[in-house]
Amino acid sequence: MPRSAARLADIAPFHVVELLTRARELEAAGRDIIHMEVGEPDFATPAPIVAAAVDALNSGKTLYTQALGLPELRQAISDFYRHRYGVAVPASRIAVTNGASGALNLAFACLADPGREWLLADPGYPCNRHILRTYEGRPVSIPVGPESNFQPTPAQVGAAWNEHTAGLLVASPANPTGTLLTLPEIAALAEVCRARDGHFLVDEIYHGLTYECDAPTACAAGDDIWVINSFSKYFQMTGWRLGWMVIPEAFVRDVEKLAQNLVLCPSTPAQYAALAAFRPETIAILEERRAEFRRRRDFLAPALEAIGLSVVARPEGAFYLYCNCSAVAADSFALARKLLEDAGVAATPGLDFGANAPEKYIRFAYTTGVDRLAEAVERLRRHCGR
Amino acid sequence: MPRSAARLADIAPFHVVELLTRARELEAAGRDIIHMEVGEPDFATPAPIVAAAVDALNSGKTLYTQALGLPELRQAISDFYRHRYGVAVPASRIAVTNGASGALNLAFACLADPGREWLLADPGYPCNRHILRTYEGRPVSIPVGPESNFQPTPAQVGAAWNEHTAGLLVASPANPTGTLLTLPEIAALAEVCRARDGHFLVDEIYHGLTYECDAPTACAAGDDIWVINSFSKYFQMTGWRLGWMVIPEAFVRDVEKLAQNLVLCPSTPAQYAALAAFRPETIAILEERRAEFRRRRDFLAPALEAIGLSVVARPEGAFYLYCNCSAVAADSFALARKLLEDAGVAATPGLDFGANAPEKYIRFAYTTGVDRLAEAVERLRRHCGR
Repeated sequence: MPRSAARLADIAPFHVVELLTRARELEAAGRDIIHMEVGEPDFATPAPIVAAAVDALNSGKTLYTQALGLPELRQAISDFYRHRYGVAVPASRIAVTNGASGALNLAFACLADPGREWLLADPGYPCNRHILRTYEGRPVSIPVGPESNFQPTPAQVGAAWNEHTAGLLVASPANPTGTLLTLPEIAALAEVCRARDGHFLVDEIYHGLTYECDAPTACAAGDDIWVINSFSKYFQMTGWRLGWMVIPEAFVRDVEKLAQNLVLCPSTPAQYAALAAFRPETIAILEERRAEFRRRRDFLAPALEAIGLSVVARPEGAFYLYCNCSAVAADSFALARKLLEDAGVAATPGLDFGANAPEKYIRFAYTTGVDRLAEAVERLRRHCGR
Repeated sequence: MPRSAARLADIAPFHVVELLTRARELEAAGRDIIHMEVGEPDFATPAPIVAAAVDALNSGKTLYTQALGLPELRQAISDFYRHRYGVAVPASRIAVTNGASGALNLAFACLADPGREWLLADPGYPCNRHILRTYEGRPVSIPVGPESNFQPTPAQVGAAWNEHTAGLLVASPANPTGTLLTLPEIAALAEVCRARDGHFLVDEIYHGLTYECDAPTACAAGDDIWVINSFSKYFQMTGWRLGWMVIPEAFVRDVEKLAQNLVLCPSTPAQYAALAAFRPETIAILEERRAEFRRRRDFLAPALEAIGLSVVARPEGAFYLYCNCSAVAADSFALARKLLEDAGVAATPGLDFGANAPEKYIRFAYTTGVDRLAEAVERLRRHCGR
């Protein structure tokens, strides 16, 4: 029998999908399930973005675009960097992609040589290491914890770097923890990579969803840094599959060659839609929703703490709380199953984010309204006997 | 300085893009250019498909779907196989993808082990070998010519197969030639692969655009065959980036794991749009357009022959004529440049399709109306002095 490639043995499914399947069974049987496992805003795409797509479709804009995206969208993203961050990023360095996933695929297709090692934080977003593995790069985990706010430090990166290391990928805000890197922290990590002729990639897909301050962009720390962003989270365009990547000048041509061959172009309707994403009326809607996410976080974090689910990382951004559940259960995966079965609350076990003490942690997403969050807290309180 | 991965040295850009850039310069300077280089129907997406997308967007259907696509779309594709081909393909074996490109990415991510060889026809669609190379597989060309209607034969495949060979990819209708494989020919190629525990992939993205007969699907030749298709060409949804793949049962789970990690899901608006692609009113529009493509082919093929541009392959499908231009020029790439500069006709040189005597061949797409094709023929006639 012909078989799959060897890499498949290293590519894990999402464990939470198993829980989700069970959640749907329970719902089909009439149970009420509160979904706190979902990494997706519960808001539909803002109306001005949808209207722009409808206009484009009705005027026949359904053909291929350039492989790196519509020039006017690349320019709009460049303008966004200037207006929001005060950073000059030329449109020529911006590639529009099939979501941040598409950006990471192109980045690792461009950079990852077989067997070369890349440093990634653990816990971290699991797809990143699986995308890397698919292009035959080797993910190497840097265990991160509360002592460094769940972000890798320059000292850790320096210590982990060896002759096989090709680069470093970090995320700010991070998933599953929501923690941020400051600009000096980003600059220090960049310097570690630069001194070793390594690549430095920064995942900024939760930018815009921060609640104490605006997150600084790594674009301000050097034009040799790869920066990945998305229209999914802040702009609430998940299903459209649109993102972008800022590419160091020397690699733009290689990424373009890859995009021509691997994807042809990003979705044309999504690109026309995204042209409306930066308009003042859209931003006004998005900022209201950001305030709503903040209200949810400010309600949920102390409520979980009171039950014994300790929020271990400063949840500065994204829409997740990463909790240490050791006080209420020995194994977070078993806890996630029990919470679903007994309390009707779906959450994501640490197992989906790596191998660094995953049994201690569980992630709650506040991608549902405060009323439902309050109901979830009440159910959790009863379940935990607090 | 950090560098790109070694694979980039093997990944070529499209040479025709250089011509296209020049074409745009000439157009900007006021010249009239007839575009026969474009692999894209000149029709906008049919109105019922657009209307379905608009309805979905206006009802907030902008969130992620399942990684392998909406269950109802997978079922609609399964139904399509039953109605159009009389073949039973269960929805569970169908993955909805980011175009046929996305399907090939997932297939090779799933199957291509580093250094293992895959047999591909030369000339052939260049992206296929570049996608394979990206996942560290090694493309091996089977030179094909008029003697086998530009399709590989079982004898050639058997002779080229060695201990390093993992599989075979063919296309029917083929690009750049438009030639078909019959069902017995597909079955014979499948048997060669099967006997060697190899994988067999069939690219059917130009299905529906055939003019003498309907193309048989490889799904009828065994459920161990991977079949790639697309909503781009027959359904005229190029910019939406939506396709699908029929997967042998044993590999569905691995493709799903990859899709969860590499893409999350195909475009949601495009999937809702595609639900309308199989409706009778859409098919009626598509069949009218198919008849129009046929009229164009039937006009263009003899007209090019009369100028000395010999149509070497039976152009049974797709919307291309692959011509031997030896009688009018020694090098097709130089000819393509001259046709653009002197005659204002853009065509694609053989160089974009492989290394098998590319200088002899040039591809003309009939993706423009008969009036413009007639004007192109008149310009070519004058240029060639016939």
